[in-house]
Formats: sequence, C-alpha cells, structure tokens
Amino acid sequence: MNFETPEWIANQLAKIQQFVDQKLIPIEKEIIFADFFEIEQRLKGLREEVKTMGLWAPHIPEEIGGCGKSLMQLGLISEVLGQSPLGHYTFGCQAPDAGNIELLHKFGSAEQKVQWMQPLANGNIRSCFGMTEPDTAGSNPTLLEATAVLDNGEWVLNGKKWFTSSADGAQFCIAMVVTGPDEAKHQRASMIIVPTDNPGYQFVRNISIMGEAGSGYYSHAEIAFNNCRVPEANLIGEVGSGFALAQERLGPGRIHHCMRWLGICRRSLNEMISYVKTRKITSSKTLADMQAIQHWIAESAAEIEAARTLVLQTAWKIENIGFESAKNDVSMIKYHTANVMQRVIDKALQSLGGLGMTDDKILAYFYRHERAARIYDGPDEVHKMVVARNLIKKST
Amino acid sequence: MNFETPEWIANQLAKIQQFVDQKLIPIEKEIIFADFFEIEQRLKGLREEVKTMGLWAPHIPEEIGGCGKSLMQLGLISEVLGQSPLGHYTFGCQAPDAGNIELLHKFGSAEQKVQWMQPLANGNIRSCFGMTEPDTAGSNPTLLEATAVLDNGEWVLNGKKWFTSSADGAQFCIAMVVTGPDEAKHQRASMIIVPTDNPGYQFVRNISIMGEAGSGYYSHAEIAFNNCRVPEANLIGEVGSGFALAQERLGPGRIHHCMRWLGICRRSLNEMISYVKTRKITSSKTLADMQAIQHWIAESAAEIEAARTLVLQTAWKIENIGFESAKNDVSMIKYHTANVMQRVIDKALQSLGGLGMTDDKILAYFYRHERAARIYDGPDEVHKMVVARNLIKKST
Amino acid sequence: MNFETPEWIANQLAKIQQFVDQKLIPIEKEIIFADFFEIEQRLKGLREEVKTMGLWAPHIPEEIGGCGKSLMQLGLISEVLGQSPLGHYTFGCQAPDAGNIELLHKFGSAEQKVQWMQPLANGNIRSCFGMTEPDTAGSNPTLLEATAVLDNGEWVLNGKKWFTSSADGAQFCIAMVVTGPDEAKHQRASMIIVPTDNPGYQFVRNISIMGEAGSGYYSHAEIAFNNCRVPEANLIGEVGSGFALAQERLGPGRIHHCMRWLGICRRSLNEMISYVKTRKITSSKTLADMQAIQHWIAESAAEIEAARTLVLQTAWKIENIGFESAKNDVSMIKYHTANVMQRVIDKALQSLGGLGMTDDKILAYFYRHERAARIYDGPDEVHKMVVARNLIKKST
Amino acid sequence: MNFETPEWIANQLAKIQQFVDQKLIPIEKEIIFADFFEIEQRLKGLREEVKTMGLWAPHIPEEIGGCGKSLMQLGLISEVLGQSPLGHYTFGCQAPDAGNIELLHKFGSAEQKVQWMQPLANGNIRSCFGMTEPDTAGSNPTLLEATAVLDNGEWVLNGKKWFTSSADGAQFCIAMVVTGPDEAKHQRASMIIVPTDNPGYQFVRNISIMGEAGSGYYSHAEIAFNNCRVPEANLIGEVGSGFALAQERLGPGRIHHCMRWLGICRRSLNEMISYVKTRKITSSKTLADMQAIQHWIAESAAEIEAARTLVLQTAWKIENIGFESAKNDVSMIKYHTANVMQRVIDKALQSLGGLGMTDDKILAYFYRHERAARIYDGPDEVHKMVVARNLIKKST
Repeated sequence: MNFETPEWIANQLAKIQQFVDQKLIPIEKEIIFADFFEIEQRLKGLREEVKTMGLWAPHIPEEIGGCGKSLMQLGLISEVLGQSPLGHYTFGCQAPDAGNIELLHKFGSAEQKVQWMQPLANGNIRSCFGMTEPDTAGSNPTLLEATAVLDNGEWVLNGKKWFTSSADGAQFCIAMVVTGPDEAKHQRASMIIVPTDNPGYQFVRNISIMGEAGSGYYSHAEIAFNNCRVPEANLIGEVGSGFALAQERLGPGRIHHCMRWLGICRRSLNEMISYVKTRKITSSKTLADMQAIQHWIAESAAEIEAARTLVLQTAWKIENIGFESAKNDVSMIKYHTANVMQRVIDKALQSLGGLGMTDDKILAYFYRHERAARIYDGPDEVHKMVVARNLIKKST
Repeated sequence: MNFETPEWIANQLAKIQQFVDQKLIPIEKEIIFADFFEIEQRLKGLREEVKTMGLWAPHIPEEIGGCGKSLMQLGLISEVLGQSPLGHYTFGCQAPDAGNIELLHKFGSAEQKVQWMQPLANGNIRSCFGMTEPDTAGSNPTLLEATAVLDNGEWVLNGKKWFTSSADGAQFCIAMVVTGPDEAKHQRASMIIVPTDNPGYQFVRNISIMGEAGSGYYSHAEIAFNNCRVPEANLIGEVGSGFALAQERLGPGRIHHCMRWLGICRRSLNEMISYVKTRKITSSKTLADMQAIQHWIAESAAEIEAARTLVLQTAWKIENIGFESAKNDVSMIKYHTANVMQRVIDKALQSLGGLGMTDDKILAYFYRHERAARIYDGPDEVHKMVVARNLIKKST
Repeated sequence: MNFETPEWIANQLAKIQQFVDQKLIPIEKEIIFADFFEIEQRLKGLREEVKTMGLWAPHIPEEIGGCGKSLMQLGLISEVLGQSPLGHYTFGCQAPDAGNIELLHKFGSAEQKVQWMQPLANGNIRSCFGMTEPDTAGSNPTLLEATAVLDNGEWVLNGKKWFTSSADGAQFCIAMVVTGPDEAKHQRASMIIVPTDNPGYQFVRNISIMGEAGSGYYSHAEIAFNNCRVPEANLIGEVGSGFALAQERLGPGRIHHCMRWLGICRRSLNEMISYVKTRKITSSKTLADMQAIQHWIAESAAEIEAARTLVLQTAWKIENIGFESAKNDVSMIKYHTANVMQRVIDKALQSLGGLGMTDDKILAYFYRHERAARIYDGPDEVHKMVVARNLIKKST
Repeated sequence: MNFETPEWIANQLAKIQQFVDQKLIPIEKEIIFADFFEIEQRLKGLREEVKTMGLWAPHIPEEIGGCGKSLMQLGLISEVLGQSPLGHYTFGCQAPDAGNIELLHKFGSAEQKVQWMQPLANGNIRSCFGMTEPDTAGSNPTLLEATAVLDNGEWVLNGKKWFTSSADGAQFCIAMVVTGPDEAKHQRASMIIVPTDNPGYQFVRNISIMGEAGSGYYSHAEIAFNNCRVPEANLIGEVGSGFALAQERLGPGRIHHCMRWLGICRRSLNEMISYVKTRKITSSKTLADMQAIQHWIAESAAEIEAARTLVLQTAWKIENIGFESAKNDVSMIKYHTANVMQRVIDKALQSLGGLGMTDDKILAYFYRHERAARIYDGPDEVHKMVVARNLIKKST
C-alpha cells in the first residue's frame, strides 16, 4: 500500500490550487449571482488562461485537446477545483459536458465526434443530458416515459424531462428515451442526440431551485420533446443500449462528483477555521477557543479525510481491478460522501452565525445547492439498498 | 394535569386553519418570490378579511385593536399560522412588529403609543428592530458598539446594525445602542426610536440571504446611524434599560417562534406524507411503502409532538408561575425546537427527491430560511451553555 | 391546558423521592449484583416499610390492597421509582407482576383472583409472563409456535419461551399459546395460567444477558412446556382472546415503562452533573467548565423534558379520551423515549470517563440493561412502521 | 497511490482468518466467561499452534522471537485478530504486553531485556502498565499523583493506579510515577519496573466493569504502591522521560487498536448480515428484506471502509514520513474509529433483537466492553481538542 501523491502531480495540484485561490475565489460571488450570459465572456478569459497553462480539460484524451489524466489524477484535480463553484467550468471539465464528451468519445460515430464532441471538448459549445423526468421515479428504469419511435429514417421523440442541467444555452441534448417499451427492463431505452434548435425541442423553463432559477451553465431546466424529429444517425451506440451507456457515464463520474464534494468540504472547513480564529467573543477570546467549535472542526476533519481515502481507494479499484469489482464501492462513496459534505457544510455555516446565512460568504450557496447531492444520480436510499443487497448476497 | 384545548379555542384554530389552507397556501409561491411592494396590496386585502373575521392581531390587547389572547392561546394560533410564510403577516402578528408593539405598550410613553404603537397595531405602518451588529458577537452584550450620546436634548446615534429584519419600508426602527459604555454589563444599552426618514438613518442594503435579498417585509437589512439625531423623548423606558427590555421582548417571543416552527414542522410533515402517498416507485408501490420513509415520518411525528408539549408547558409556566421560573425552559425550547425543525424539514425534503429542491414546493424555502432558527435570538451554543450552567448551579 | 402537579400528589412524590434517595440508592449496588434469594429478605423489609407508609402497590385498586392510583399518577410515581433498579420491586409495582395483577383483576375468574391475583398483589408470590419465543419474530403474531390443545378437560401446552422475565422463583406463568392455529391472525392465541411446579413446566436457564444471568426477580429465563397439562379453568378470559388481552396489558404498561425510563434519564443526568462538578481537570477547572459537557447536559435536559411532557399527554389521552384514540401516541412514546434514554445514558457514561465503565457507579448497569428498551415490547422499527402507516392512512 | 495488499501478506491474512474462524470463534464464549486461570492451559495450546504456524508475535522483531512485521502489516493482522476477543492473546500480540515489549526493546537496559522482555516475548509471563489513577484526570499530566523517590539506591513508590489491565497474574508492572514534581509538565514522570511479588505492591481488586470483574488476562485492576521499594536499575530510560516514552508507546499502539476495532466492526457486520438473512418475519420474508436493516448494513459498511482506509493511510504516514507528521492523524483515527465502532455494534445488536442482548452472541460483549474505546488512551473530547487546535494553528 502506498498513499503518496507523486511529486509531478502534487506540483500540478499546487498550481491549480493557486489559480483557484487567486483567480476564482475572489470573483466567485460576482459570477454565481450574475446572469450567465453577461459574465460568460469573463469566464472565457479564464478558460484561455487555463489553456495557456496547459491544464485545459484534464479528463479528455490528449488527441482531442485535453490533458488525458487518469481517473485517480482527475479525482485529485476535481477536489481542488471543487473548492469554487467556478472551478470545473473554468478548467473545461464541468458536468454534464464532461460526461457527454466521454460518452461520445467512447461510443459516438465518427460524424457525431466531429459535429458534437470536438466543439464540446474545445469549450466552444455546451450540451445537456436529458434523463430525469418530472412524473416518474428515476430509480426505476421501467417507469421511464419519454419515447422515440423510428419513422421514415427519423427518430420522433415525445416526452418531458427536468433537472436537465445547463440546458439553457446548450447546443444539443443527449436524450434518454424509450425505444423498446416491451424489451427487458434495462434494454428499453436509447440515447439520442437532439440539437436544441430543433423545432420539436422545447425549452420550458429554468426550474427555480432553492430560490434561484439561475441561467446558462448554472441552471437546471425543464424541457420537452413534442414530435421532435431527428436523423436516425443521431442515435448513440446501439438501440436499447441507453442504460448500459448511462452506467458507463455515471460510474467514473461519481469519482469526480465525490472528489468535488470533498473540495467543497475542504473549502467549508477552511472558511470555518479562518472565521473562528478572528471572531472575538470576549475581549480576549475568539470562537476558536470554544470547545464546541473545536469539536466540529475535529469531527469534520476526520470525516473528510476518511471519506477521501475511501474515494481514492475506489478510484484505484476501478483503474486497477475494473469497474465491475468496484460497483459497490461506487455506490458507497456516493451516499457516504454526500452525507459527510452535508454535515460539514452545516457545521461550518453554524460557526459563522448570521454571516453564514448570507451570500457574503460561499457557505450559504453550498448549503443550498449541494443539498441535492443526496438526491441526484440515485438518492441515498437507493444506493444503500443496492449496497446492502449485494453484501447480503455475497455473505455465506 | 390537563392537555385539553378548550372547545372555543379549538373552533377558532379550525377557522384559522381553514383560512391558511384556502387563502394563504394556494398563493404563497406568488407572494414570497415577488417584489413585496408589488404584492403588498394583495396582502392588505387578506388582512381586511382577517379583520372582518375578528381575528386581527391575536397578540394585542383588545383596547388597542387586537384579540387579547393569552400567551398559550397565541402560541396555538402561531402554530397554525406558521404553516405558511404568509400566516403571521396576514394576521398582524408578525415579527418584529409584534414585539415592538408589545414593548411600546408596556414601556412606551403616551406620545410613543399614539405616534408609533397604534398605527403599527392597526397594520398601517411597519417597523424594525436594530440590535445585531455585523462586527460584534451578539451573544456578548459588552461587545455592543453602536452608541447614542445625549447632546442638546437629542440623542446622537452612530454605528452599524444588520439582520434588521423588515427595515425595507419600515417607518421606524427601535435601535439598541450603548448609552453608558462604562456601566455594568447589562446596563450599558438603551432602546431609542429612530424614524427611518431621519437624514442620519441610512438604509445600506437588503442582505442577500440564502440566495435572496428579498424586499419589504420579507427582507433583512444592513442599516447605519451616521450622527443620527433624534429627540430625547424617543428613548423607550429608562436610560440603561435596553437589555432588560430586550429580555422582556425576547422571552415570550420565543414561545411564538417555537410554535411557528412547529407549524412549519407540521406543514413539512404533511407535505412529505401527501407526496409519498402518491409517488409511484413501481407499478403497484408508492414511496409510502418504503420503510425508510415510514421511519422518517414516525421519527418526525414523535419529535414534533414531544417538542410541542414542551413548548406548551413552558408557555403555561410563564403564565402561571412567572417568567423568571421559566427562563431555563425558554432557552431549552429555543434550541430543542429549532433542531427538531431542521431535522424534520431535511427528511421531508429528501422524501420529495428532486422536487424537494425546487421552488415548486415550499420545502426548499423552509430549508433555506429556517436554517437561521438555530442562530438568531441566541445560537444553540449560547442557550445550551446557559441551560447547563443553571442546572449545574442548581444541583446540590 | 394545565401542567400543574396537584399538591397532594407532589407531596407524595417527594416522600417517595426521599425513600429512593435514603433507602434504595445507598444499597442498590449490594442488591443488584447479589444472588436474589440471599437478599430477598432485605427487600422484604423495605417492602414492609413501604406498606407502613401507605404507598404499597400504587397501581392496584384499593379493594385488593393497593393505592388505586390513576394512570397519570402512577406514571409520575413510576418516574421517581425508576431512578433506582430497586424502586418498582420495593413498592410492589414491578413488571411483570404489575401487568399480571391488572390482567387477572380485569379478566380473571373469581378462583383465579383468589388463588393467584391476591397473593401476587400482597407481594407474597411472584409470577412471570411467557410470550416471546426464541425461534419466531415476536412482531408477527402469526408466527407464534407454542401451542395448547384441550384434551380431556385439560390444556396440554407445548413449546418454548424466552425472555420470560423473573421466571426464576415465580409461582406461576401466564403463557401465551396458540389455541386456534387456523383462526384469524389476532384470534389464534390464548393466555393460560401455568403453575411452575407443574411437571410439564421446565425452567431451562436464566439467559445470560449483557454478561449477567442474574437470579430471582432480576433475571430473564428460557422456559419450556413439555406436554404440560393444566386444568381447563386456567384459561384467562375467552379462547382466542390472547392478543386482545396482551394489548390491554401492554398499552398502559408502556406509560409505566416510559416514565420509568425517564426516571433513569433523570438519575443519569444527576449522576453526570454531580460528577462533572467535582472532577478536576486542572488546578482551577472542573469538567463542568467544559463546553462539550455543558452541551450534553443541556441537550439531555431538553430531550428528557420534551419526552416527559409527551408521555404525560399520552397518559392524559388514554384516561380522558380512551386508549383507542391514543394508540399511535403509545407507539410514539415507546420508541421516542427509549432512544432519548439511550442517548442520555451514553452521554452521562462518557462524562464519567473510566469510572462510568465501572460498577462502582450505576450508569454501566443502565447502559447494559436498558439497551433492551429499544427491543422489548416491540422494537423501534415495528412501532415506527405502525405509527407511519396510521399517519399515512389518516392523511387526506 | 496504491491500495493493493501484496499477495504474500494477503495469503498470510487468509491463513490467520481461517485460524480465527475455525479455532477461536467456536470456543470464545467458553473462554471469555470462564475463570482465566482455569482456561489458561487451553489458550496455551492454541498459542503453541500459532508458534508452529510461524505466526507468533507478529509485532516483535525476529531476533527476539517474533515475526517482525511492519506497522502496516501488523495493522492488517490486528484487524483479522480483532474479530475475536481471543485473537491478540492467542497470537502473542495482546495489550498491554505488546506495548511493554516494544518499550523494553527500544529503551530497556540489557538486564531488563533479559529478565523481563524476553520471557514476555516468549509468552511465558504477563505484565501490566500502571498509568491511570482513580483520583486524577488522565488527560492532564500535571495532575498525576503517584510518586517515586530515590532513597538509598532504591526507588520508593507510593500511590494508587486503576484500569491497570491484566494486572491479575502479571509478573511485573511498568509504573508511571512522578519523579520530578517540580519539573516542567512533561518531564515530571518516569517509568519504573515493579515486580508484583514486591511486598510494597498491592493488588487491590479487579474492578467490576460493565457487570464483570473478569480475571487474569481479561481483567482491569486497581493496584497500590505502599512504600514499594525497587532497585534503582528498574527505571526505564532516563529520569523524567515517562511522558516521552508513553507517547512512543501509545502512538503506534493506536494503529493496532484502531485496526482491532475495525476487526470488531467487521465481525459485527458479519453477525448482523448472517442473522438477518435467516430470521423470518413472515412466511416468505426475512429481516434482510427490511429497508431499515439494509440501510444499517450499507451505512455500516461505508463507515467501516472509510475509517479503515484512513487508519491505513495513517500507518503509512508514520512509516514513511514519520510519527511527528502523523500526530494529528493518530488522534483523528482514535476518536473517529471508536465512534464508528460504537455505531456499528449498536446497529448490529438492534438487528438481532432480543438475541443481541444475550451472551449467546458476541455482540453484547462488544457492546459492553468496547464502549471504553471512546474513553481510554485519551477520551474523544481530548483528542478532538488537540486536532482542532493543531488545525487552527496551522491555518493561515
């Protein structure tokens, strides 16, 4: 066993940390509460700096313009970037584009790669991923309702999607739709590329989430397909391969998510520590002298570090033993880390008192938006059931 | 011992519940996300209905236009009203006005009553209460920094306040300021009425809280006093009586707050139950069939009901034995109920999945804004210390 | 609503408290770790004192030798007695005898009353209640396996029971056995009196629980019926009424249990407070000065008091509205109070450090034995399911 | 980073696991509730088997008869052994002997090694370590009261110790005593070897802990030094080096403890899973089908695995970067793992229902005795303070 971070990676992480500290954190409040399309140009400037530094798109193979990092390296980078809501976007590895690029790179046709993947990899366009539906429980694939029917060489899509992140301003949507209603549970659906300028594609609204509808990249939309016709060639992979592809897309994605959450944890812990050090409660004492606060810091630090080593071990397993053998771990890190994050953010917020409630600090933003971590990509309850059933089955 | 709610009160509560269900809940989303000044007229209409029903201002003595309810009765009403963010405002018993009316009624001069209290009681004007400061810990009165100096028959105020709720649009502010910097810890401050059209009174901003700056009644401001001169007669009570008055103001106020929170709990539990009953997870099962969800419902119900009986007992103690003997109880209900509420809201939100994150439902609003309950009016940590020290001292 | 404890009852509680403090707590360690039959005589002496004081058997009607207290009064007494493991036994209101007396008083035949109930009420004999079985889940009545068949005017019992508390030295057992295997779920069983000197009754062992097999009253046995023949007249009530009677027996019994647990909570809190006040951690500071300890005290105090008011409200409902309407409350107080108790004991134990682990203090005893509260009489999980399903059904 | 367990170590662990499963677990109940001196011979037989297998004393250098494992390897072995209360003793790496051997190996004189260390390493004698005192808080070294004064070439010891584990039957005690009352805080104490047949050494009692005084190796004693005279040469290391040596002794010891606790966690999880798989709750369902149980399994599995990777990382840091740099980690794993263990054991016990309370299963033993993990070697509260203060200091 070896817990060392190789020096060259450590150096790169330090460089990224410096960029986050100096270029992103100072401006994040201006960005996240602004209209996205107004500040997009500013973010483009930062992206150029990142490209110049040779750090653009760490998750993407070098041949299509990225840094070609391994899953483990990417996880470590994701942790650093996670400290600011601007991190991933600025470095070109933001969800859902990152997953869409990966998907198209692995399973897209040559045309799909040229037309959609490469501009996405370059950061010239944005995309979205339409899977979750408002009226059906995402945890049960047999309930999926949106459909696509092949008609005259075209797929005709109908149905509703929501929590389609970053649809606002996206050039295309990868839609998960039922193509074989009578097929076996996990062979019912397919993924189809839908350009958002298609007349049958409807952008309904940016859903107001925790008080904010957001805009552009920072938003989550409701969309609809109304007899939306796209070429047959827009299918990704095989007919009926939707769930298999989704699994491919989500699996390693959970490593990035978890590492991003751990970045949020670390930022929150830092915010807590630096505040309590300076907040006077008497003429000679600060909040840092209070034992309750000290306990929160110590409990948070231990929880974060334990979750972190678990996530890294999972990344290692995926890379070295294979995804299949790491499936239970991937579920475990999902609910475990999301809950650690919620507890850490909550303690940090409480430490800041009233200030923690305000948007003068980043904690309220994390508190609101990261609450979703226990819900998206499979809620706690579903992953726990999966893990338990596997453990029960495996036991002799 | 007797846990019966007298029939006439039960009837009145049922009437109020009906009003909340039929008139408030259906429109609350339109109101809370709107600009206050645009929807103020609509709320005025509802207030007129409440007045017609004879339920206006339950907390105010009949002689000045209210219903003259006892603390216990008011608590029960507060619980029903708490189910909607519109409840208290519509019934004319909203903080901070309710506390300010009570204060002026008990300690205000005849002129103060005519000029400020009565219009407030009638719902014709609004007010705010400036106590918390951005740069000092509210839990320690010796740190209070804003000052007032008597000069030529006028108080000259200087200093900053924040979390001055509802300052936006208020006609006057009751300011808690240091008038005797060298007096004993609890005799340093006084309360002074400051009209908001005074040139020395500065409305700095509505603080953006959890993503929302809000407006009008639904906002929390930063304000400042810059050589702000007001007549000597604007002092409430005696010089140096600020903390004593604040205690008077906060004590029974905690009963209202706690009962309001329990209303929020009940609403959240109801939202959770009605959602899980209908949300299908398979063709034949709903979320209500899941044991994890059932446990959340059962744990929430028990926590709510236990906290509720504790708050009612505290109200009874204040009314029947006296505030002094109930002081520890008042602190206990503060942190206990606030934490119960946070847990209940969190479980309800999780039960609704993605929908719970959206502003299509009220839970996200509660999740964001009621997080402050563990902070304002003394954070958990301060009240726990107070309670423990009292118990330790009392033990033989 | 009225939370007053009437003066005469308060006086009586004070008298009982004094007895607990002066006569029971000082000797409890000698008693609970001794062989029961060696110290039984000493306990008899204490029981005589209790009789002389006119406080014997508070739960029993006066005509059969008790104090005829109401459910609420009994609850308050149970709380005081619960502070010592000797309390209930000394006052003649210990489980399982208390429940058995109540059962026989309500449903026993004249002969059963003379032969079994009265000696039990007088404290001259002891009894046990055989319901739980080692091989079946107690939460599902259809799984009950022990049987009784009527043969030639005698019931012939066969089967195993365990957790038959206080069987060691009991004169009779009330056995819950299947008499109608094909009847509806809740009509399958009956209660039958089995004298323990019957040759078909087998005392298998006192089960070692948490390191202790115990003896006499302080034990939990495994027993067996091997073609055990008893007269037909030993049936209590009707054939098939077993579950209905069990419900009757358990319902109010939960009030006593919960109030006893709250007595344990209070004792634990007191032990914690008095220890931390005196335990020096520096030359000038004690553990009571540590904020973490203060928080435990404050959290415990609030949880205890909230649970207490909830239990009292439930007792009031049973007495004033009827058991049926209070059924959900009875389930709620069961799991809620048991969990409060576990948390309080745990915090108290931790406060005492190593000393808390030792039998020099009572906390380790509570920690071990009261862990069962979340399991017996229906585990948390079953009661939570019951409560949730009722709430879900009731909601519209 | 590399999370692989080398094959040869994995093979050895599998062999040890087999021994634990086949030789230890089946007999553990007979052993742990027996008088130690009656079953000592049986354990000796098992120890011989271990020696034959070449697995004796994994923590001891090969030159003195052990296997000379690294800290990391030892941790992995400790985890496997921890699954049974017989594990460490049987393999000759039980506390406190293991620590005493290490101490004497590093700091003992040649004579001390011959006379005390070697027989201990061979498993021919036992020892104890007298540090904790009944009347002083162990967390504050300045409060230590037991003394040793040099008189005429002999140390004269006076004072009381308790929680002196395994003193019953030990041949010598390493006593931590004040030799320089006026020296700086961490230079006041020294370690001195006291043979237990010394007339001034008094074995007071085996303290009854959680209902059990235990005996022999499985016991915790109160001892006293009454003008106890031992040769000057019995001092270990330098005068005043007591705390430095204790730190040396405790540091790596925490890795073993934590890994042992994780073994207990794994055993508890396995007991839970195998029980719920077979426990029927209806004719067709087992407890394993209940979602609440599934959640406990999943939460436990994640917590265990996260804590485990954290402990392993800490072991790696100690070995590869040095103890000083890992100090905070060592404190973190102490409180974090101890709390994970308490939660896991509690969930497992609850899953087994009444059976979990009995000594028919190992869980009640763990529940009782491992509660101490949050207390000994520095309670949670002290370690949390240490960690927080370090993090606060380090932050800029």
